[in-house]
Amino acid sequence: MHFDYKEHPHTRVNLLTGEWVLVSPHRSKRPWQGKTEAAGGAQRPEYDPTCYLCPGNKRADGDNNPQYTEPYVFVNDFSALLKDTPDGELNEEGLLVATSQKGICKVICFSPRHDLTLPEMEVSAITKVIDLWAGQVKELSANPIIRYIQIFENKGEIMGCSNPHPHGQIWASQNVPLEVFKELQQQKKYYEQHGRSLLADYLKLELKKQERIIAENDHFVALVPFWAVWPYETMIISKRHVQSVVQFTAEEKQAFAEILQNLTIRYDNLFETSFPYSAGMHEAPVNDGEHPEWHWHMHFYPPLLRSATVKKFMVGYEMLANPQRDISPEFAAERLKALPTVHYKKK
Amino acid sequence: MHFDYKEHPHTRVNLLTGEWVLVSPHRSKRPWQGKTEAAGGAQRPEYDPTCYLCPGNKRADGDNNPQYTEPYVFVNDFSALLKDTPDGELNEEGLLVATSQKGICKVICFSPRHDLTLPEMEVSAITKVIDLWAGQVKELSANPIIRYIQIFENKGEIMGCSNPHPHGQIWASQNVPLEVFKELQQQKKYYEQHGRSLLADYLKLELKKQERIIAENDHFVALVPFWAVWPYETMIISKRHVQSVVQFTAEEKQAFAEILQNLTIRYDNLFETSFPYSAGMHEAPVNDGEHPEWHWHMHFYPPLLRSATVKKFMVGYEMLANPQRDISPEFAAERLKALPTVHYKKK
Ligand SMILES: O=P(O)(O)O[C@H]1O[C@H](CO)[C@@H](O)[C@H](O)[C@H]1O
Ligand SMILES: O=P(O)(O)O[C@H]1O[C@H](CO)[C@@H](O)[C@H](O)[C@H]1O
Repeated sequence: MHFDYKEHPHTRVNLLTGEWVLVSPHRSKRPWQGKTEAAGGAQRPEYDPTCYLCPGNKRADGDNNPQYTEPYVFVNDFSALLKDTPDGELNEEGLLVATSQKGICKVICFSPRHDLTLPEMEVSAITKVIDLWAGQVKELSANPIIRYIQIFENKGEIMGCSNPHPHGQIWASQNVPLEVFKELQQQKKYYEQHGRSLLADYLKLELKKQERIIAENDHFVALVPFWAVWPYETMIISKRHVQSVVQFTAEEKQAFAEILQNLTIRYDNLFETSFPYSAGMHEAPVNDGEHPEWHWHMHFYPPLLRSATVKKFMVGYEMLANPQRDISPEFAAERLKALPTVHYKKK
Repeated sequence: MHFDYKEHPHTRVNLLTGEWVLVSPHRSKRPWQGKTEAAGGAQRPEYDPTCYLCPGNKRADGDNNPQYTEPYVFVNDFSALLKDTPDGELNEEGLLVATSQKGICKVICFSPRHDLTLPEMEVSAITKVIDLWAGQVKELSANPIIRYIQIFENKGEIMGCSNPHPHGQIWASQNVPLEVFKELQQQKKYYEQHGRSLLADYLKLELKKQERIIAENDHFVALVPFWAVWPYETMIISKRHVQSVVQFTAEEKQAFAEILQNLTIRYDNLFETSFPYSAGMHEAPVNDGEHPEWHWHMHFYPPLLRSATVKKFMVGYEMLANPQRDISPEFAAERLKALPTVHYKKK
């Protein structure tokens, strides 16, 4: 018997973090008697008078939202990071070590419409969201205390999203966060050894193989990374080796909007539900010198495993020992690739 | 204004992994409009004829469980790791890297009683579970392919536990899993520098401070680690610097059972619910030379934040950037410490 990575249990190395995932492809046959989730995607009104993100409505801090018609950004009323935290450190015998952190947290409404999500928006409307992301990165980078800007979206109740109005967040921090730090180390190491971008080389190999590619256009590729942890985890990688969304040309922004729409429609079509995920771009750190090694990309971490109601639990073994997945990344890519790019609600 | 780690946002270093957590103590005031969970802990029968873990019942593979009266262990019918996986590697240009993994997965029924959980069991019954854990570690270590043995429990539906019958699991693997690998590095580094156990020194400082200690007996301490990620995350640390549960004396096993009961009763009492968590011992790797640096401990990762129905979501920012918590570890420790050690159902 020969080792077959599509069939036998094995570990795969995550190039971006240097960590690894346990893959148990045979385990997808396991029956499920555990917890099921409510299926998402109930029809919502275009405007909800009780929603604190809808245009004109009152927010938690008492402010009223303007009658916005384009993507709208404001400072998070419950920011995890604050601008005016006093500097300070704690270090007791090298055993209790803490450092004060400043930062800025914002909320971005993707659309005035309460009932839409990215996959249901027009490409032109998604392009405006991307423009706002780029504008925010520019603006926040101008603040010298900021070292890293994380833009992300928690989509769906199951992802801790407390309001279905389409929105994302920005957490800009004084330090480089853990996951970004790992990716920085790995990309640096590769760049120093090869003089090329790690993700550019990886992308080249994936395009040759065509085993994990879901969609491609002139400027971007959507794929299931070889080391994916979540069942339908994907990445969007820019073909051009740039460090940040601010470097995208107008044509690239349009292509980015197209592949975002393409990928998220496939997601919704997979289980004919508003597909939950956490997603976010990984940008180079800012106010931190040059980062020629950094290659812009976006991660999608969706929790669903078998259906709209059965998710993958990252629990016991995963928390204590090693991330583990039950279906192979190749199987996931094949399924996502085979799906139509017209949203199931519009059929 | 001075930096106060109980009030201001900051990062804390995790000594065991070398990673860090973002703490936002002020954020606990945030209102919650999002997803709530069903409260656990509905009364169950002592015996459930449809449960595949109850004594005498039929399992998925067609076998019948014996009429067991003590903790009972069997090979998992849906093992993520298998004994006979063929050896093999994949390495394409250093970019697609995979290694075959062998292993053994087992299930442990803690009690024949379908309606009990650890906090509701007698200390003498918990001691038998610990004896079985030690026996399993001994037995599995005798297999030369095994390098690491992870014993753990997923408790509660919200932790992906598909059967409420009190049970845990063992995943024994050919490689050292990621989280254990990190702890190995950190403990080694400290041991080489200081000639002492990292956790022994940490424990000494925590016992002096008494800020995060929940319970203590002659042989064990239960505390909220300074770097806890989950709202009510805790650790049990042995006072004696040993590498494995197999080294515990009969007296230590009894004391371990007592502190396990003490801690899990506090957990159940916190929100008067069967408190969900993933928990597991971290043992030194086996068949891998000496590990004088390793210090036995047990982690508890419970998801609940505010009540039996509102959990902490480790999503967007946490997945893409940095683990983040809203209440301080000191606040969590204070609450757990103040709770009675008589189970609320027995009051
Ligand atoms: O083995 P079980 O109980 O079927 O499955 C549960 O625990 C495993 C180990 O932590 C996880 O990988 C699964 O996602 C979870 O549902
Ligand atoms: O900021 P929100 O939407 O209130 O909160 C949500 O996203 C945050 C950032 O990923 C998480 O820390 C919270 O656990 C989650 O509920």
